[in-house]
Amino acid sequence: MATPSYSAAELAERFGLELHGDGAVQVHGVGTLARAQPGQLAFLANSKYRNQLAQSQASVIAMRAEDAAGYPGTALVARDPYAAFARMAALFEPMPEYPAGIHATADIAADAHVDPGAHVGAFVSIGARSRIEAGAVIGPGCVIGEDCVVGAGSRLLARVTLVTRVRLGSRVTVHPGAVLGAAGFGLAMDAGKWLNVPQLGGVVVGDDCEIGANTTIDRGAIEDTVLEEDVRLDNQIQIGHNVFIGAHTAMAGCAAVAGSARIGRYCLIGGAAGVLGHLEICDKVMVTAMSLVTHSIREPGEYSSGTPLMDNRSWRKNAARFKQLDALARRIGRPERASED
Amino acid sequence: MATPSYSAAELAERFGLELHGDGAVQVHGVGTLARAQPGQLAFLANSKYRNQLAQSQASVIAMRAEDAAGYPGTALVARDPYAAFARMAALFEPMPEYPAGIHATADIAADAHVDPGAHVGAFVSIGARSRIEAGAVIGPGCVIGEDCVVGAGSRLLARVTLVTRVRLGSRVTVHPGAVLGAAGFGLAMDAGKWLNVPQLGGVVVGDDCEIGANTTIDRGAIEDTVLEEDVRLDNQIQIGHNVFIGAHTAMAGCAAVAGSARIGRYCLIGGAAGVLGHLEICDKVMVTAMSLVTHSIREPGEYSSGTPLMDNRSWRKNAARFKQLDALARRIGRPERASED
Amino acid sequence: MATPSYSAAELAERFGLELHGDGAVQVHGVGTLARAQPGQLAFLANSKYRNQLAQSQASVIAMRAEDAAGYPGTALVARDPYAAFARMAALFEPMPEYPAGIHATADIAADAHVDPGAHVGAFVSIGARSRIEAGAVIGPGCVIGEDCVVGAGSRLLARVTLVTRVRLGSRVTVHPGAVLGAAGFGLAMDAGKWLNVPQLGGVVVGDDCEIGANTTIDRGAIEDTVLEEDVRLDNQIQIGHNVFIGAHTAMAGCAAVAGSARIGRYCLIGGAAGVLGHLEICDKVMVTAMSLVTHSIREPGEYSSGTPLMDNRSWRKNAARFKQLDALARRIGRPERASED
Repeated sequence: MATPSYSAAELAERFGLELHGDGAVQVHGVGTLARAQPGQLAFLANSKYRNQLAQSQASVIAMRAEDAAGYPGTALVARDPYAAFARMAALFEPMPEYPAGIHATADIAADAHVDPGAHVGAFVSIGARSRIEAGAVIGPGCVIGEDCVVGAGSRLLARVTLVTRVRLGSRVTVHPGAVLGAAGFGLAMDAGKWLNVPQLGGVVVGDDCEIGANTTIDRGAIEDTVLEEDVRLDNQIQIGHNVFIGAHTAMAGCAAVAGSARIGRYCLIGGAAGVLGHLEICDKVMVTAMSLVTHSIREPGEYSSGTPLMDNRSWRKNAARFKQLDALARRIGRPERASED
Repeated sequence: MATPSYSAAELAERFGLELHGDGAVQVHGVGTLARAQPGQLAFLANSKYRNQLAQSQASVIAMRAEDAAGYPGTALVARDPYAAFARMAALFEPMPEYPAGIHATADIAADAHVDPGAHVGAFVSIGARSRIEAGAVIGPGCVIGEDCVVGAGSRLLARVTLVTRVRLGSRVTVHPGAVLGAAGFGLAMDAGKWLNVPQLGGVVVGDDCEIGANTTIDRGAIEDTVLEEDVRLDNQIQIGHNVFIGAHTAMAGCAAVAGSARIGRYCLIGGAAGVLGHLEICDKVMVTAMSLVTHSIREPGEYSSGTPLMDNRSWRKNAARFKQLDALARRIGRPERASED
Repeated sequence: MATPSYSAAELAERFGLELHGDGAVQVHGVGTLARAQPGQLAFLANSKYRNQLAQSQASVIAMRAEDAAGYPGTALVARDPYAAFARMAALFEPMPEYPAGIHATADIAADAHVDPGAHVGAFVSIGARSRIEAGAVIGPGCVIGEDCVVGAGSRLLARVTLVTRVRLGSRVTVHPGAVLGAAGFGLAMDAGKWLNVPQLGGVVVGDDCEIGANTTIDRGAIEDTVLEEDVRLDNQIQIGHNVFIGAHTAMAGCAAVAGSARIGRYCLIGGAAGVLGHLEICDKVMVTAMSLVTHSIREPGEYSSGTPLMDNRSWRKNAARFKQLDALARRIGRPERASED
């Protein structure tokens, strides 16, 4: 692969940015503001790092107009330098090629349909009645069960499993190890033994969603588990059956959502946060890392649970007192109303 | 696949339920009480949803005798309508076929034994001295190492790994991505470097257990890691080496159990709950979601840890006070004994 | 496989231990102190279990000099009996054979390089420009993408994915289901939709590291995600992009580290503990299970967050008071300084 190279002027034109300084400067890669080498593109999005500007070796830096004002080097001025950087950096990302066609080793059911423009890699299984649309990529080791759809331009990078009745929209990316459409955890106790409740629904994933490595999304019991468009799930997330996640919501790694919870649009769920089942969370809710949502949330805003980190000796003393909290409060008497939640 | 169809009278007879109303009504699928269409079977298990009965379009509804009393439509009366529904719904579940035989691509050790009545799918590896019993299903992409047993009628749906010395009983279901029998996390610090402690034990899984997608169960250090019969593990659970889990215990997604913990029978471990190592939990203990079990539990009942969810501003104020709790308590003096744990 | 057998005298000589008692006693396996059978080797590392010595059926026991003093049986005296046991137990571990060579089914890019002394198993994919060094083991079902290196003697046991730009040092062990080098979770909100920030870095893993089953380590955004040598990660751990983990640090199952956090050497991170992004943790820090590290740690020592486990009724009463904590504290007035963190 020849390394691509672009001049600052080319980048300014291609991405609609304002050029400050020498447009002939060439960049052939990216770096952080602090450690970029000459020939690299960097960005300054947070003014807190402005003091790194003077020392930066980057040849071209994306930044806001106010930061570019006194900057003597080459700058590309953007209202959102991080987004501008993201678009430009994509020019330098080495992308594997996925030629159209089906690898000789793939095992495809007779009544499955693979578009001639799709790529199906080595050691892939595709089950009955499943459909792979144009431009889709099914990477090595993926297993697709029965009655699934992989929409146009969607990519299952490697070792992804779609168990059954999983329908992915267009341009969905699924990272390795993810399992979509496994049977939801539906059990009924019956004469002292567990009885499985059949999981007859599927999973519906909207356009432009991203599903992280080793994330699991169970299929619904009766109706479907649903992700609207542009939902972004990081790694190792667990989504229970019949969960509904609104468009543009993002969840960080190891978050877990129990069955039938309904999460709104533009929510941000922190890492290892939990959401109990059958709750509703409205749009634009942010839940901080490792918090547990135990009741429905009806107002946008930021929510938290947990206690602060302490040295273990202090923690032990304070944590022991947590067990006496109600008794202590009774001694003190009723607190003022104002500070209650 | 032709859609199966059953009359209410057929269902009543087949499942030993009492029929109220028109026995000739046909159902060919299932729905929720609120959204079922004509021709579908629904259920009413929780009297809280009784007000949905009047509007429900379901053709047949499983419910308790007291709910059926004034219901003008067709009801199937059961003491446990949810369990009755679960049994009936299985009639409508499309099941993939697993014909007996070994896929041409499978790679099976010369001294492994596969029963002629077992199904072995595409891209499966089976290692030395392993045994696959009658009616077992080894789905596509599974890897079975050395000295494993997959009991009669057990199903590894796809991309399951049994690393080594894993013995599954009969009718065990393992969902995709699960890894059983990886080396336990046994380390000794030796001259400033970690030394691996060999993990010589195995994993023993009883009849009728279910292991969720991407769940991991490590093999024992010296003795085995053990699940008794009918243990139900949801997705993304981590079970450390030498853990023992009693029969009929169920754990929700993302729970984690550290090495050598011993959990009783009929326990319910909530989602993302943790159990420290070398503890004992007696029978019939329920641990709520995201709680951490830090000491042995000797009395049946429900246990919890954690703090309530609050808006972030309130949470910050209260959480900061948690660090002063011991000092505050000292000021107040000794609380009454009654409210302590 | 013939069972190996060793005399106590042979073990003493081979591992540099002091022999007490009958050197001719043979052992052909290992057991726990409490349940070993005659012919087995056990160990006593924690004097708390000293009372089990008298009843132990083990033929040979590794123990400290002070415990061996009055012991009438055969003892192997070690300063660290657990480490001595670990070394000896390795003699009895049945190890699968990994003959050098490439399995007929493996799918290897034309410009990838596999050392003739490496083992490549069934259904393995190796991508462009990747290199597998001498003595490396690539177990069945592994997928290795582009520009990866698997160093000498490293082992990917089965179904491991190295997505792209992952460089493993020598003698690294990766357990099944692990995914290294997936794209970090880098998003920019742009006109109401998420924009992916290209993840151009890689993952660098030092010599002698161990990566647990279903653990995920994302590749860096611009620079690399780095594990120094001898880092030990248990199962189901999530490591975000651009994290740095110092040598000899160990993390228990389900821990999660957010992007750009920097963790020192010889740290111990407990199970299901979390570390927020962009923090620094110095050397020799221990974080207890399920604690959340929300700020940088600059002093070695043990750190915790969370509340104690209680019966649910007591917990509900006390947890409700947590919401009033600030109000209660205001009533009491300023606590003494001494007990604050």
